[in-house]
Amino acid sequence: MKVLFIGDIVGSMGREMVIDYLSRLKRKYQADVIIANGENAASGRGITKSIYHDLLHAGVDVITMGNHTWDQREIYDFIDEVDYLIRPANFSEQAPGKGMTSITKNGVTISVINLHGRTFLPPHDDPFAKADELVEEALQTSPLVFVDFHAEATSEKIAMGWHLDGKVSVVVGTHTHVQTADDRILPGGTAYLTDAGMTGPYDEILGMRKEDVLYRFYTNLPTRFEVPKSGRPQLNGMFVELDDKTGKALKIERIRINEDHPFKN
Amino acid sequence: MKVLFIGDIVGSMGREMVIDYLSRLKRKYQADVIIANGENAASGRGITKSIYHDLLHAGVDVITMGNHTWDQREIYDFIDEVDYLIRPANFSEQAPGKGMTSITKNGVTISVINLHGRTFLPPHDDPFAKADELVEEALQTSPLVFVDFHAEATSEKIAMGWHLDGKVSVVVGTHTHVQTADDRILPGGTAYLTDAGMTGPYDEILGMRKEDVLYRFYTNLPTRFEVPKSGRPQLNGMFVELDDKTGKALKIERIRINEDHPFKN
Amino acid sequence: MKVLFIGDIVGSMGREMVIDYLSRLKRKYQADVIIANGENAASGRGITKSIYHDLLHAGVDVITMGNHTWDQREIYDFIDEVDYLIRPANFSEQAPGKGMTSITKNGVTISVINLHGRTFLPPHDDPFAKADELVEEALQTSPLVFVDFHAEATSEKIAMGWHLDGKVSVVVGTHTHVQTADDRILPGGTAYLTDAGMTGPYDEILGMRKEDVLYRFYTNLPTRFEVPKSGRPQLNGMFVELDDKTGKALKIERIRINEDHPFKN
Amino acid sequence: MKVLFIGDIVGSMGREMVIDYLSRLKRKYQADVIIANGENAASGRGITKSIYHDLLHAGVDVITMGNHTWDQREIYDFIDEVDYLIRPANFSEQAPGKGMTSITKNGVTISVINLHGRTFLPPHDDPFAKADELVEEALQTSPLVFVDFHAEATSEKIAMGWHLDGKVSVVVGTHTHVQTADDRILPGGTAYLTDAGMTGPYDEILGMRKEDVLYRFYTNLPTRFEVPKSGRPQLNGMFVELDDKTGKALKIERIRINEDHPFKN
Ligand SMILES: [Fe+2]
Ligand SMILES: [Fe+2]
Ligand SMILES: [Fe+2]
Ligand SMILES: [Fe+2]
Ligand SMILES: [Fe+2]
Ligand SMILES: [Fe+2]
Ligand SMILES: [Fe+2]
Ligand SMILES: [Fe+2]
Repeated sequence: MKVLFIGDIVGSMGREMVIDYLSRLKRKYQADVIIANGENAASGRGITKSIYHDLLHAGVDVITMGNHTWDQREIYDFIDEVDYLIRPANFSEQAPGKGMTSITKNGVTISVINLHGRTFLPPHDDPFAKADELVEEALQTSPLVFVDFHAEATSEKIAMGWHLDGKVSVVVGTHTHVQTADDRILPGGTAYLTDAGMTGPYDEILGMRKEDVLYRFYTNLPTRFEVPKSGRPQLNGMFVELDDKTGKALKIERIRINEDHPFKN
Repeated sequence: MKVLFIGDIVGSMGREMVIDYLSRLKRKYQADVIIANGENAASGRGITKSIYHDLLHAGVDVITMGNHTWDQREIYDFIDEVDYLIRPANFSEQAPGKGMTSITKNGVTISVINLHGRTFLPPHDDPFAKADELVEEALQTSPLVFVDFHAEATSEKIAMGWHLDGKVSVVVGTHTHVQTADDRILPGGTAYLTDAGMTGPYDEILGMRKEDVLYRFYTNLPTRFEVPKSGRPQLNGMFVELDDKTGKALKIERIRINEDHPFKN
Repeated sequence: MKVLFIGDIVGSMGREMVIDYLSRLKRKYQADVIIANGENAASGRGITKSIYHDLLHAGVDVITMGNHTWDQREIYDFIDEVDYLIRPANFSEQAPGKGMTSITKNGVTISVINLHGRTFLPPHDDPFAKADELVEEALQTSPLVFVDFHAEATSEKIAMGWHLDGKVSVVVGTHTHVQTADDRILPGGTAYLTDAGMTGPYDEILGMRKEDVLYRFYTNLPTRFEVPKSGRPQLNGMFVELDDKTGKALKIERIRINEDHPFKN
Repeated sequence: MKVLFIGDIVGSMGREMVIDYLSRLKRKYQADVIIANGENAASGRGITKSIYHDLLHAGVDVITMGNHTWDQREIYDFIDEVDYLIRPANFSEQAPGKGMTSITKNGVTISVINLHGRTFLPPHDDPFAKADELVEEALQTSPLVFVDFHAEATSEKIAMGWHLDGKVSVVVGTHTHVQTADDRILPGGTAYLTDAGMTGPYDEILGMRKEDVLYRFYTNLPTRFEVPKSGRPQLNGMFVELDDKTGKALKIERIRINEDHPFKN
């Protein structure tokens, strides 16, 4: 199975990049499944039902989330109705939604798990224990398991990579909005990348207007971070090829599209 | 001027990688100046006088530091005696050492500034204000200015990139020990990379024995993190070419050497 | 000079307690000056111009603030117009407002300084250095100096007490909303109390509806914290008597009024 | 049952205060049971087996711990052998030791539970869920349950008070080393105090040499905090009287002994 992953989609520029490039990327990589992190899809803050459907319509198969899951209040109304939107599995048991889903393409099933880090972040349930629990469950269905670990600290993300090495097909990080260059296949066969990077404005700070973020750093005064609707965009993500029988990763490749690095067929 | 930068050198494996590859890298890139972050050079914790001299002997011209600056107590004795070891400039005015130095090669001078972030980190002096102050001073000497911003959060690092864009030649981040893939030349002419990555063990967590770090994540129990002395190594860094007249960056290229990505001439 | 201090006034219940008890407290303690922390006076979030005037009308002479200073956007419009509202002095130099004021009663002048901690809080300017600077300035006018240090960690607050011991008349903490029982006169003559406590709802959590706060702790889900408008109230504060000549503290007494500890003349 | 609680015992001065005052306090309050927090008993860092026995010999019945539990490595050797030393129950299941014990005096049994907060602290297991689990177990034995919640944030501590109100006899906080003045019996019958304060040096910062702590705040440089062995001491704690039948609190009284507030019979 060939899987494309798109890092945190930020605002309308991020969504437009998905619409503009997804079919080309799908063709280039012959991708069977498209997974995307959508926690910032709605103006940088969460996701709406209509954006969820737009992204699925654009070709995304499964959407993962993160700390911004609940930013749009309407999510409480639709998260339990939709099949392909997951939020971190180690959120409270009282939280709506679910942390794992699966999708079958051309007769092959892959489970997708979303987890949340705790370093520099709120004390969610233990992501390592939760990973073990869900991976065990997922492996009943298929050897292909994809994990989006939404976390801040490189130590915690790499730790999750080693923790799950040989047990899952892919561990990819999200949340820092900057793609890392440490793509590799770990010795046990798990494709690993600390962060996939973001998809949205290219000339701002994590997708937020740079003047706003700089003002906050300069002054520590409260500042509303706007997500620009125009300017140069970027798309960051990752491609992995997995062995359908064993679930092992055969290939990992980073994807980075922006004016300095235009898309190549 | 052509500049090589080596990311956080961790322990003896990191130092050996520098010794093994530096002359080859220097030759390949025709580098005039070598800068390296040495905050983890001594068993992962700070730097000693003898390691400082070893690294200079191996070809490093300037060593920058970070939060681990003071881990080896002997640094208090030699930091004010040596010329090419700098620690974050926005540390307390009462701290020994200095935060800026300069080096001249083939008649061209470059200033090197070390700064420290504050997001998820102690409340050091304002790095943005300190940057302005030192850059102004540095520009009196030469238009070539290199900044190592040792920080955790991608937002703060990118903010520093935009803050200094057009004012300095290079802003490179260190501290997360994972190389990022966002190398670019910003519109004002500043070469930028969120993190250069680390130099040391390849199969561990930030250079620390993975079993130790995992145990801490699993249990939250106090754990001493050992830095392995053997195993597969990696070297991460960056090459930049600068215009001697304007100080603008002409080229930026990431360097990543490990068994999966062997050195190529 | 006799000074009353009222801890963080939270919402309408807090303001009503001030109105109900201030004249009685003033009479009981023969207070010359009333200082109050008003950072939560407007529904728990900041202060409005009309509440500022209401509190002055109720008898408060000087209002100090804290991390909630900017919660009500109208403060940007009036903070520079009013004389007796101060915000932490170690906020950014670009922040509106001022961090010190003074008031004269019966021929005696007292300076009031507001500072903000940095432990577990954003990296404002150094409160210890800023304290030195402002205290030096204040002492030109009068030996009576009152400091409200708005901070989280007991270590930082006690450190400020010792730092200023013998230099100012009073160091009182605010922000934790819980009165501490460590009122004392330090050896140098400075009255010290780690936290004055809050003024507002008695049966909630820091003045916020306890069900909301518990829900957040149970689930880590985003929750809006309401400030109840009815229920049993409390008032917490402190009385100090100062020597007009030397500025030294002669007496410190905690004030705690609630149904379990009714006001006594 | 009448219970005395002694807040964080810090170093030799803290232990000496316990030895000096415990029999007098026991007599004054006719206390049946003495509980003490001992996480800083060994030079401010953890506890040793010999100090454990010294404290029991001095009259302490049960010792609770906190974030400093593991500071003395010998604790790993004896914590599972002794009956009356507990560490936070929401530490990892892989941690040695236990989080609940009980003691019977004059035919009445009281359970003692130790829990750890998570706000501004590492992501231990959920203390609220763990409290529910242990309280249910404890109530099988006796209606008298005493909880030491070792936590930083006032919000989390007060939240635990309300969470357990009516279910346990006492919720007392430790860790900030400053006694709070909010002792009360909550509507459900639970005696509550946000922090009991510390027992040890009176003229330092949380029991650590004030010059060391101030140096850290002034410079952010690494500093070893010494615990003085001489100087003026203090003892802080709490007395509660409980109904043996219902477990409800009948009385709560703060205890504060220092040169400014000498012990009175
Ligand atoms: Fe994101
Ligand atoms: Fe995120
Ligand atoms: Fe490092
Ligand atoms: Fe570092
Ligand atoms: Fe407040
Ligand atoms: Fe506050
Ligand atoms: Fe303690
Ligand atoms: Fe503690």
